[in-house]
Amino acid sequence: MNTIKSYIDANKNRFLSELVELLKIPSISADSAYKEDVLKTAEAIKESLHKAGCDHVEICETPGYPIVFGEKIIDENLPTVLVYGHYDVQPPDPLDLWDSPPFEPVIKPTDIHPEGAIFARGSCDDKGQMYMHVKAMEYMTETGQLPCNVKFMIEGEEEVGSESLAWFVPRNKEKLANDVILISDTGMIANDIPSITTGLRGLSYVEVEVTGPNRDLHSGLYGGAVANPINVLTKMIASLHDENNHITIPGFYDKVEVLSKEERAEMAKAPFSLEAYKDALDIEAVYGEEGYTTNERNSIRPTLDVNGIWGGYIGEGAKTVIASKAYAKISMRLVPNQDWEEITQLFQTHFESIAPKGVRVKVNPHHGGQGYVTPIDSIGYQAASKAYEETFGKVPIPQRSGGSIPIVSLFEQELESKTILMGFGLNSDAIHSPNEHFGVWNYLKGIETIPWFYKHFTELKSK
Amino acid sequence: MNTIKSYIDANKNRFLSELVELLKIPSISADSAYKEDVLKTAEAIKESLHKAGCDHVEICETPGYPIVFGEKIIDENLPTVLVYGHYDVQPPDPLDLWDSPPFEPVIKPTDIHPEGAIFARGSCDDKGQMYMHVKAMEYMTETGQLPCNVKFMIEGEEEVGSESLAWFVPRNKEKLANDVILISDTGMIANDIPSITTGLRGLSYVEVEVTGPNRDLHSGLYGGAVANPINVLTKMIASLHDENNHITIPGFYDKVEVLSKEERAEMAKAPFSLEAYKDALDIEAVYGEEGYTTNERNSIRPTLDVNGIWGGYIGEGAKTVIASKAYAKISMRLVPNQDWEEITQLFQTHFESIAPKGVRVKVNPHHGGQGYVTPIDSIGYQAASKAYEETFGKVPIPQRSGGSIPIVSLFEQELESKTILMGFGLNSDAIHSPNEHFGVWNYLKGIETIPWFYKHFTELKSK
Repeated sequence: MNTIKSYIDANKNRFLSELVELLKIPSISADSAYKEDVLKTAEAIKESLHKAGCDHVEICETPGYPIVFGEKIIDENLPTVLVYGHYDVQPPDPLDLWDSPPFEPVIKPTDIHPEGAIFARGSCDDKGQMYMHVKAMEYMTETGQLPCNVKFMIEGEEEVGSESLAWFVPRNKEKLANDVILISDTGMIANDIPSITTGLRGLSYVEVEVTGPNRDLHSGLYGGAVANPINVLTKMIASLHDENNHITIPGFYDKVEVLSKEERAEMAKAPFSLEAYKDALDIEAVYGEEGYTTNERNSIRPTLDVNGIWGGYIGEGAKTVIASKAYAKISMRLVPNQDWEEITQLFQTHFESIAPKGVRVKVNPHHGGQGYVTPIDSIGYQAASKAYEETFGKVPIPQRSGGSIPIVSLFEQELESKTILMGFGLNSDAIHSPNEHFGVWNYLKGIETIPWFYKHFTELKSK
Repeated sequence: MNTIKSYIDANKNRFLSELVELLKIPSISADSAYKEDVLKTAEAIKESLHKAGCDHVEICETPGYPIVFGEKIIDENLPTVLVYGHYDVQPPDPLDLWDSPPFEPVIKPTDIHPEGAIFARGSCDDKGQMYMHVKAMEYMTETGQLPCNVKFMIEGEEEVGSESLAWFVPRNKEKLANDVILISDTGMIANDIPSITTGLRGLSYVEVEVTGPNRDLHSGLYGGAVANPINVLTKMIASLHDENNHITIPGFYDKVEVLSKEERAEMAKAPFSLEAYKDALDIEAVYGEEGYTTNERNSIRPTLDVNGIWGGYIGEGAKTVIASKAYAKISMRLVPNQDWEEITQLFQTHFESIAPKGVRVKVNPHHGGQGYVTPIDSIGYQAASKAYEETFGKVPIPQRSGGSIPIVSLFEQELESKTILMGFGLNSDAIHSPNEHFGVWNYLKGIETIPWFYKHFTELKSK
């Protein structure tokens, strides 16, 4: 594996231009207007896996967007690594906040990326991080150093709930059989502080609808005399947190994993500048659950956030109307041991119970997924840790992430293997936001580090 | 005036078809796409005033939509009645809730209108009610019974705040000089319970904006750790009412007129069925300020209602985003003695003061107007009361309305005359809502009653 650095130096421009081409295709899975582009992206991924040395590549049809599968089996007695990633991207809106068009990638200098960053939707989440694996594969096969079997499963619906993947995995257990699953769809603390994500939060996403009078009313004639669905909705949502920002849904915290003092002290060692955090977001103060630090609030604690709200007249100017209906999209991030279906049920029961007379409430569960924790004493974690040590020169910090990759617990259940989350993005990469980017240095460092994982995993596994 | 009934019988079909033609023009002042239609409506009104017997008619230009003016001066020594109305209409959305297209008027039977009702946007508010005055004028001039001078001032921006009227009135005091102002833009209790509106609520309309982080964030990575502008906005709005639904803005109630027990007892005599009210709106319970009845809540008490709210992802499906900004449109209905500019200031100061650290709040005052009360011992009120007695066979009940016609207090200030609100609509007419309608019986009863006002006003005035 010692030739990886020189291989990257020799091929750097090609690695970048190949990624740029991939980023030009607007593979927005949430918007059916982009269907052709999503399918075109799947074809491009299949082609790149073939070129990277996979013996067998195929586009697997599903009820939704296809899953690209590729593999190279060198010896059935050797371990098998299954790489998961996704080729779809988030919608780019609001477009006017992008400094350059989201699907016209440009490499620009930034304050924190030594070789600049690629600005484009999907650069970090997840085309850039997924493509690191394709290029690492290319290196290992080109130089005859692939130490074990590899499978790739790259899906096109991660940004819309991975429904087709949930259909595909149980139907293809043999095809997907593996010893460990490797994913790069998370971040690390900083370029000089490598970290491995060991926990993901679960998710429950619901939509609520509050109906008051059977039609929109004149706010002069009816104002003050009937329940206004928007006022009621704000009151109901506001009541979901108490004055300490604890969530008030009965039973919500019952199964929440409580970390020991020692574990929290260990977490607190991760370097973190509250000032830099506030500056980056242009906020005067952070805000959250009493008794927890910012890093705890967005990793080991569950949350409840409104992701969207609407009702009444939202055009220009004024309309003195009392709307008949008001709506909100609400998501809860969950921690290990909280069951997303149980939490969804608790939310629904509670939300319906707090509706005042005079309105009717509907809760529509959307989707969800369980949280996940990777044990740091597993072979997979140990192999990843050694890989980072080879290329960063220091042992990575295990870190819980606040995000959710619901399919990780599906993998564990269906494929009975653990997932290792080797993320090379940074929190400031603005994924899901305008001006998403991915450091050039991070992209190349990922390509450099991944082959070492294969080497150490194969060695540890054969011990 | 005794021939009015037979005149109406003879001309009923024409009166209806002329109104239908007027209702076909979509004079939506809020939407500039309808500019030509708004202007076309002004022309149609001018033409109809001319035909009804005005000596002088003109389209008066303003910074916005024009004001149609018409007059017939028969003797400068006689009193002058100024009729005000508006030819613009509310936007018709949501269109899918209309049973027939809003600008294709149809006459259909209803449960409560003896001769059916005309369904169309503007049928009641205010084209239908305004046109009653045009047809009453026609009767009086055609039959040589006009007892005094008449002026008409019909504007095209009532539904968007009457800004051009506020510009026009102070510049045309002499042209508009009058002894009493007559408006039909309100309602009455029921077809067998005539009433005259003696009070209007004032209005303060504001738009608020809450800004959190400087960009939309991924709710997994940041959820729980930063102030979510939507959650914060719901909390701030919810806090504007206490558990008894009193408004919590300091000083808000300081100048609110307190009615005596006797006055409230008098009000309570107006017939009202809570069951029928709830049934009509399809609600299980009413909702409002503790200690007041439904009729008090929407007339003598001030209110605060959210008219629109929006923020975050409101499209189909799910997006796990923490929005950078959230917005709401909020209106307060005010009662006599509350000054709308002072209340707007109190709102702004309070709303800014309750913002938690971690967000920034902007309050943009929109527009407003003062409340108004007509003394029931004035000649104008007495003349109107007698007119109703002539045609309904009973004395009308004086009634406070919850709505606002901000220009009424402007008229009092600039033209130094009182306004009489002779409304012939019903609360169930769905003004500002889908399926707005106006009873055929009510339309004709208005035309019948108005000439009697002229007769009695002229007689009382000359005493």
